[in-house]
Amino acid sequence: GGASAVSQNGRGAFQEESQVISATPLCKYAHAVEDARRIAFYVEQAVRTSFYGRPGPVYLDMPDDIITQEVDDDKIRMAATIPDAPRPQVLEDDVEAALAALESAERPLVIVGKGMAWSRAEEEVREFIERTQLPFLASPMGKGVVPDDHPLSVGAARTLALQQADVVFLMGARFNWIMHFGMSPRFSKDVRVIQLDAAAEEIGSNVPTEVALVGDGKAVVGQLNKALENRQWFYPAETDWRNAIAEKAAANQEMVQPMADDDSAPTNYYRAFKDIRDWLPDDAMIVSEGANTMDIGRTQMPNNLPRSRLDAGSYGTMGVGMGFAVAAAVVHPDRPIVAVEGDSGFGFSGMEVETMCRNNLPVKIVILNNGGIGGGIDELPTDKPIPPGVLTPRARYDLMMEAFGGKGILVEDPKDLKDALDEAMAFEGPAIINVLLDPKAGRKPQQFAWLTKEE
Amino acid sequence: GGASAVSQNGRGAFQEESQVISATPLCKYAHAVEDARRIAFYVEQAVRTSFYGRPGPVYLDMPDDIITQEVDDDKIRMAATIPDAPRPQVLEDDVEAALAALESAERPLVIVGKGMAWSRAEEEVREFIERTQLPFLASPMGKGVVPDDHPLSVGAARTLALQQADVVFLMGARFNWIMHFGMSPRFSKDVRVIQLDAAAEEIGSNVPTEVALVGDGKAVVGQLNKALENRQWFYPAETDWRNAIAEKAAANQEMVQPMADDDSAPTNYYRAFKDIRDWLPDDAMIVSEGANTMDIGRTQMPNNLPRSRLDAGSYGTMGVGMGFAVAAAVVHPDRPIVAVEGDSGFGFSGMEVETMCRNNLPVKIVILNNGGIGGGIDELPTDKPIPPGVLTPRARYDLMMEAFGGKGILVEDPKDLKDALDEAMAFEGPAIINVLLDPKAGRKPQQFAWLTKEE
Amino acid sequence: GGASAVSQNGRGAFQEESQVISATPLCKYAHAVEDARRIAFYVEQAVRTSFYGRPGPVYLDMPDDIITQEVDDDKIRMAATIPDAPRPQVLEDDVEAALAALESAERPLVIVGKGMAWSRAEEEVREFIERTQLPFLASPMGKGVVPDDHPLSVGAARTLALQQADVVFLMGARFNWIMHFGMSPRFSKDVRVIQLDAAAEEIGSNVPTEVALVGDGKAVVGQLNKALENRQWFYPAETDWRNAIAEKAAANQEMVQPMADDDSAPTNYYRAFKDIRDWLPDDAMIVSEGANTMDIGRTQMPNNLPRSRLDAGSYGTMGVGMGFAVAAAVVHPDRPIVAVEGDSGFGFSGMEVETMCRNNLPVKIVILNNGGIGGGIDELPTDKPIPPGVLTPRARYDLMMEAFGGKGILVEDPKDLKDALDEAMAFEGPAIINVLLDPKAGRKPQQFAWLTKEE
Amino acid sequence: GGASAVSQNGRGAFQEESQVISATPLCKYAHAVEDARRIAFYVEQAVRTSFYGRPGPVYLDMPDDIITQEVDDDKIRMAATIPDAPRPQVLEDDVEAALAALESAERPLVIVGKGMAWSRAEEEVREFIERTQLPFLASPMGKGVVPDDHPLSVGAARTLALQQADVVFLMGARFNWIMHFGMSPRFSKDVRVIQLDAAAEEIGSNVPTEVALVGDGKAVVGQLNKALENRQWFYPAETDWRNAIAEKAAANQEMVQPMADDDSAPTNYYRAFKDIRDWLPDDAMIVSEGANTMDIGRTQMPNNLPRSRLDAGSYGTMGVGMGFAVAAAVVHPDRPIVAVEGDSGFGFSGMEVETMCRNNLPVKIVILNNGGIGGGIDELPTDKPIPPGVLTPRARYDLMMEAFGGKGILVEDPKDLKDALDEAMAFEGPAIINVLLDPKAGRKPQQFAWLTKEE
Ligand SMILES: Cc1ncc(C[n+]2csc(CCOP(=O)(O)OP(=O)(O)O)c2C)c(N)n1
Ligand SMILES: Cc1ncc(C[n+]2csc(CCOP(=O)(O)OP(=O)(O)O)c2C)c(N)n1
Ligand SMILES: Cc1ncc(C[n+]2csc(CCOP(=O)(O)OP(=O)(O)O)c2C)c(N)n1
Ligand SMILES: Cc1ncc(C[n+]2csc(CCOP(=O)(O)OP(=O)(O)O)c2C)c(N)n1
Repeated sequence: GGASAVSQNGRGAFQEESQVISATPLCKYAHAVEDARRIAFYVEQAVRTSFYGRPGPVYLDMPDDIITQEVDDDKIRMAATIPDAPRPQVLEDDVEAALAALESAERPLVIVGKGMAWSRAEEEVREFIERTQLPFLASPMGKGVVPDDHPLSVGAARTLALQQADVVFLMGARFNWIMHFGMSPRFSKDVRVIQLDAAAEEIGSNVPTEVALVGDGKAVVGQLNKALENRQWFYPAETDWRNAIAEKAAANQEMVQPMADDDSAPTNYYRAFKDIRDWLPDDAMIVSEGANTMDIGRTQMPNNLPRSRLDAGSYGTMGVGMGFAVAAAVVHPDRPIVAVEGDSGFGFSGMEVETMCRNNLPVKIVILNNGGIGGGIDELPTDKPIPPGVLTPRARYDLMMEAFGGKGILVEDPKDLKDALDEAMAFEGPAIINVLLDPKAGRKPQQFAWLTKEE
Repeated sequence: GGASAVSQNGRGAFQEESQVISATPLCKYAHAVEDARRIAFYVEQAVRTSFYGRPGPVYLDMPDDIITQEVDDDKIRMAATIPDAPRPQVLEDDVEAALAALESAERPLVIVGKGMAWSRAEEEVREFIERTQLPFLASPMGKGVVPDDHPLSVGAARTLALQQADVVFLMGARFNWIMHFGMSPRFSKDVRVIQLDAAAEEIGSNVPTEVALVGDGKAVVGQLNKALENRQWFYPAETDWRNAIAEKAAANQEMVQPMADDDSAPTNYYRAFKDIRDWLPDDAMIVSEGANTMDIGRTQMPNNLPRSRLDAGSYGTMGVGMGFAVAAAVVHPDRPIVAVEGDSGFGFSGMEVETMCRNNLPVKIVILNNGGIGGGIDELPTDKPIPPGVLTPRARYDLMMEAFGGKGILVEDPKDLKDALDEAMAFEGPAIINVLLDPKAGRKPQQFAWLTKEE
Repeated sequence: GGASAVSQNGRGAFQEESQVISATPLCKYAHAVEDARRIAFYVEQAVRTSFYGRPGPVYLDMPDDIITQEVDDDKIRMAATIPDAPRPQVLEDDVEAALAALESAERPLVIVGKGMAWSRAEEEVREFIERTQLPFLASPMGKGVVPDDHPLSVGAARTLALQQADVVFLMGARFNWIMHFGMSPRFSKDVRVIQLDAAAEEIGSNVPTEVALVGDGKAVVGQLNKALENRQWFYPAETDWRNAIAEKAAANQEMVQPMADDDSAPTNYYRAFKDIRDWLPDDAMIVSEGANTMDIGRTQMPNNLPRSRLDAGSYGTMGVGMGFAVAAAVVHPDRPIVAVEGDSGFGFSGMEVETMCRNNLPVKIVILNNGGIGGGIDELPTDKPIPPGVLTPRARYDLMMEAFGGKGILVEDPKDLKDALDEAMAFEGPAIINVLLDPKAGRKPQQFAWLTKEE
Repeated sequence: GGASAVSQNGRGAFQEESQVISATPLCKYAHAVEDARRIAFYVEQAVRTSFYGRPGPVYLDMPDDIITQEVDDDKIRMAATIPDAPRPQVLEDDVEAALAALESAERPLVIVGKGMAWSRAEEEVREFIERTQLPFLASPMGKGVVPDDHPLSVGAARTLALQQADVVFLMGARFNWIMHFGMSPRFSKDVRVIQLDAAAEEIGSNVPTEVALVGDGKAVVGQLNKALENRQWFYPAETDWRNAIAEKAAANQEMVQPMADDDSAPTNYYRAFKDIRDWLPDDAMIVSEGANTMDIGRTQMPNNLPRSRLDAGSYGTMGVGMGFAVAAAVVHPDRPIVAVEGDSGFGFSGMEVETMCRNNLPVKIVILNNGGIGGGIDELPTDKPIPPGVLTPRARYDLMMEAFGGKGILVEDPKDLKDALDEAMAFEGPAIINVLLDPKAGRKPQQFAWLTKEE
């Protein structure tokens, strides 16, 4: 970050602030550069710290007078280029213990988390899943490490799979709130846990770990695969566990099918996602935020590729979508960038459409516009206060995009959605497809309330 | 702020974060409520702390399970209503010393700061200025404590007045960067200082204080006025100092007059402000942000009333304008709310127009649209990178307002500005008047660069 | 504080640490000097901040290479000498309201706190007390502002006075734990409060304030005294309230008299304090720490002079006594320094006797040695664990002093105490009088447990 | 740590303080327990965090009313026992790369640091050193992992070994100030580095790493040893490098021999250490602090066992010695505990001798008493200020021990030292041997000043 001139500290300089103190409790590393000759040193240290070990944010203060300081070139000690992060492995015994635990399981489940995406372990994980034939679930940030439509994915029966698994292999995933702390009633009380994580400190969090695998995701799954070469074992095709999952998935599908098939206007989430899903290019970077929009989208919009899903993630922060989309478009100019946004989620940083238009970034934004945070109302009352959580009904986000030179399309009838999506994709620059949803459209009934309490 | 459930701390709860630790270095007070029975206690303590003594931000964490905790009514100790903040005064001797110092001055200057607005001292300050006939300058947040168009205001010759004053009376204002630290070359090296402040710690900051008046603004200026009853003295009408200020003000006016009179399109700041100034209602709450827009606006849009100017202030943070405007409209439903915004400044929180439309808050937003941060370019290049600081040329912010149901007006020719402003004011809801400026329009030449270094 | 060289930051320098971050939540001001040319600036700012407004600790980091940096003399901007802290006063109306409230009281009580000592208000407070004839109680750090043996002091009937007062005038004192939060059962539920404090934020803490007097202690009590000139009123000599206090004081005295008169060995607190009290020079700086030692000492060792009592204070930190004594001896070479210490309290920093001997600081340390934290045992068990809180029985702290060249005296029989004290005082350097107490010696029975909970 | 009652927060409770905020920047983990039912959860989390991954301090606040809270046994979720910390390994390729780099070295050096002691890798490291025949240097906290008197140790020629090595294998050691940041002039400018560390973030600090081995010390050195089984290579006996080291060691020994042989009184460091070294039991826990005392002691007092040296370490904090000694005596009741202390270092916590006497902990404290911080003076001046850094000459620390019932022996003549040491060791309880040193006694001349600056 920038900072006011060091030489004016204490005087009440323009935007004088103690950024490093504020950043310290939130970052892996925070420092203010004191001398331009040491910028290289600190940048190397900050960058290295950010992605060596467990990745995390770092902060460097670059004060005004340090940036503008003149220094002799030969007084600068240049920093070395940072090599790839080290990839620790695990003990042979732990490899064997992990496989033995899986072998002993009746209802095994692999949870593939963002650690696998970070360590670029997609080949190893896919090989592992296919070799062992184990059912797996991707965490939100772990989507695409193995393609979501893989036959071994249990994404369509998530609740049942979590609840009844007897051995869970946490593969770069964590038992935080997204995984319901690994605790009853969302998990079996005596669930056994194999845990692969880059950070030793994470082992045993919330639930004791039976086999701990602390190391780099890619390296360790590679070790597992190697050890599997000497084993005959794989998880059999015909088991009660597989059948139960398949049945539950089918039942779930049955529950949403009528919604997906319903062509009435205004439309609902499942109907909208049906067309979106068909339209999504295989190599799309998928950005998403919202409550229902993001949650339903996690099941209805599969990822085929790792590191290709940018959503609000574990922290659940709204407002990240547009920044993600801009960044994705800059980093991947050759890939389609699709953002599927709740209208409230979009509103946090919707002004970024100006950035997209200005830089002609061809982001395609689909807004599932239900007029509120988890649902709105048909008309705003004029005689009493507007309920909290409600937004302007039928807001014309599409016009916002037009205001800055992009394309905006309003979709009032789901029958027009397909064409609208295609038109947007054909357009060379950024586009908004503003899909009006029934303000009362919802998610299919869920067995558990949000944020279930542990028992 | 909200917070995740205390009972899930340490587990990786939804948005579990150490807010109090982060807030502590930035706030006067920060705490997390531990028990619903003590909410009243902490709210009283936090609110009291925020406005007793030197005002400042406070933070209270309200965790999920504390908010939803059920408690017996009779176990709650209700908090007392907080009385108005105390109003300390100063010693009689210091009152006399302050007046004596002013009497001894050849080139006195009173700087009226936000401390006077906070302490609601407008009557006392006006009486003091008029009784002593001292030239005064309002700080940005002190505008309107004495009306900006008061004959004794030196706003139109600010640089000269600061630089040549021999005695400066800092009245609830500070020698921070906005006042150039009170140091040469922006102030005389041997300037003598009288300082009135609510916080003793502020006395003598950057420049030694000759007479310190620590107390409440309203009370202490009241003391000064009382003491003046027994004195014949006032600062004479015919002095070199007054003449120098008047001449400089006239010269400045002469310099901008041609711009203000220039009717060519696209227009410039001074021409735009000419119409805005005439149109501004006397009791308007004026909101503003931007660089040139805000700075030129400070001289071209006078305030008649105290606490009626909300701009980026000492911290200079962009993005505050729309929030200020919403708040002003809610707090003062009976007053006109006018926001004059740079296009970049507007863009930080421009999405709030949806809030205004939804709640039908009749905010009138004038955007001085020069297509960039301190100026843009006519067309975006397609063959090379867009320069930093440039925004979409001729962006249609007015259409954004229309997208949510408000009124948007595009003004391409300054000759249409007056009508557009009137039409917007006549409209019942929120409106944007999008005024296209010449991307090269600028401020009149300044004697000193921004953020002058001390000598 | 010192700090490792800035130029080695980030490298793992000798004792490289983020002191400023650690100091920030604990200090009014914390900063690291970045350039030797600005040392004067920061020292001025830090020192000024520490004693202007509400006094508090400040921290400055002085890194190795800044201290040893060479700079041109003429590049240094010297700091101005800091004038005395400003002395805010209060509004005339509040002065009158305070006096009216006192006049309306049936059972008034003035609590004189350290704010009065800090503001050097002893003359004003004494004049106020004597003019109004109001009963007063000194807080631990407010002792000596009015002499403890003043006839209007209620120190000998503290519990009753607090509990039954109907109007309490908090004069630079706070309703923190030492004053039992101002709450029932230690105070009347409907006690009315007049509060004089330097910090507005303190007003109304824990108990609502009826009359708030925010300002400098000396100045404000001066205002009260001035206003009293025009009033006839004083609190009458013959009242139930005075009588109740006097009776309770007599009863308390009666309760401890047998202990004070008991000449058996080993002795008890009251017997020891009887001789100490007689021996204490009028102008002694009295240092004290411990639990019983300090608490009983507060009633049994009166102070005649303000700012002459250094004990563990509101924070109750053990280990401060020896540092206080060394500092007192250096600052007041002309005054007798007497430290009366519990043996545990002494043990925290007892090694400082070496400092005293080395610098020949004539501190006289009386250790009330009961062999433990609030009492010990006769012999240490050899067959089971030593109970927590117990220290070595009959430890020879006196020999420690001899080890470094001072005088050490062991007092086993109270009949020898007087002579020992005199011998120590006659000795030119530091001395320890090690008084063996009965390990079971205690405080007179108290009506309330320590740290009473509010009702 | 303890804390005041949560229910009194904000009221000014006894020792109410924001410990967690203060601890946060200094600890791996800091939290305040909110409910007695969750004590087990937090203790498990804190303890696990402290020794999983890179070890570090953790902090738990235990407020008064949480400790005394009554809870139903069956509402408590007990925490699982924490398994041993995981032991990550490294990739096969990196093992080979490390060995290849060593093989390619002309002047190799292994630096054995505390990481090896922490991971209990002593067997593996010794096997590695003996198998490869590589010269090694122990860091202060790595002493004893391989016995200090091992023929391959270069401790007696440390400066030369560091300066001329062409390949350095940092084995759980860091290039911080103790290792002169790995930089010129203390290291070769083009030194190549192999680095084994538990924390990936540490790799490449200050000097780029050629081969990074991130993992558990014991596991990784085990991998190295395994790989060595397939290699013929070892570092040859007859090399210029070995000869240069041996010569330098001999020269150093020659330099100190006259001092070690000098029997005059008062004595010097080397003479004192000669007798101490002979007397030290093989299985002693050696505690030490001071400047010269600790530094010379590091070369003159060898360790045979790992984790048996407790000195001021990387942080260099004085005052830790007595606490270390008490802890060592409690943890290892069956081993001799010897503390060799500078007199200033001792003085920081010397009062702990009372703790030793009370608990009859048989700690033997040797004080090398030169009357100051790095040397004193013969007599204290009476006519001018005492120089800083000087302590009481000939202070009788031995009498302090006697004051609490231990044994104290004064040694004025080195010829009496041996007997004194034996007498102390024979004594059943704690003892101080107070060895008077010549105040001008010093260290042998050093090639580099302390805290050499990088070039
Ligand atoms: C920064 C931030 N603010 C507020 C929230 C609370 N929040 C969670 S989801 C959500 C919006 C959901 O509405 P929308 O984006 O319209 O999606 P929908 O559920 O309607 O499909 C909000 C405000 C949050 N997670 N982050
Ligand atoms: C939060 C924040 N980000 C960035 C800045 C830097 N900044 C200062 S003024 C400004 C914008 C000025 O442009 P505009 O609002 O268009 O006004 P103009 O000067 O063009 O009239 C910016 C980005 C800031 N002050 N605050
Ligand atoms: C730094 C610190 N540690 C611990 C305590 C807890 N504490 C309060 S009083 C006291 C000692 C009381 O014993 P002593 O000084 O012998 O006095 P006595 O009550 O026996 O007269 C202690 C350890 C504290 N207040 N401060
Ligand atoms: C807490 C702390 N305070 C101060 C220092 C500075 N310091 C380093 S060594 C030392 C004392 C050295 O003297 P001594 O223990 O007598 O050993 P000697 O060198 O004389 O043998 C001091 C005070 C420190 N390292 N830690």
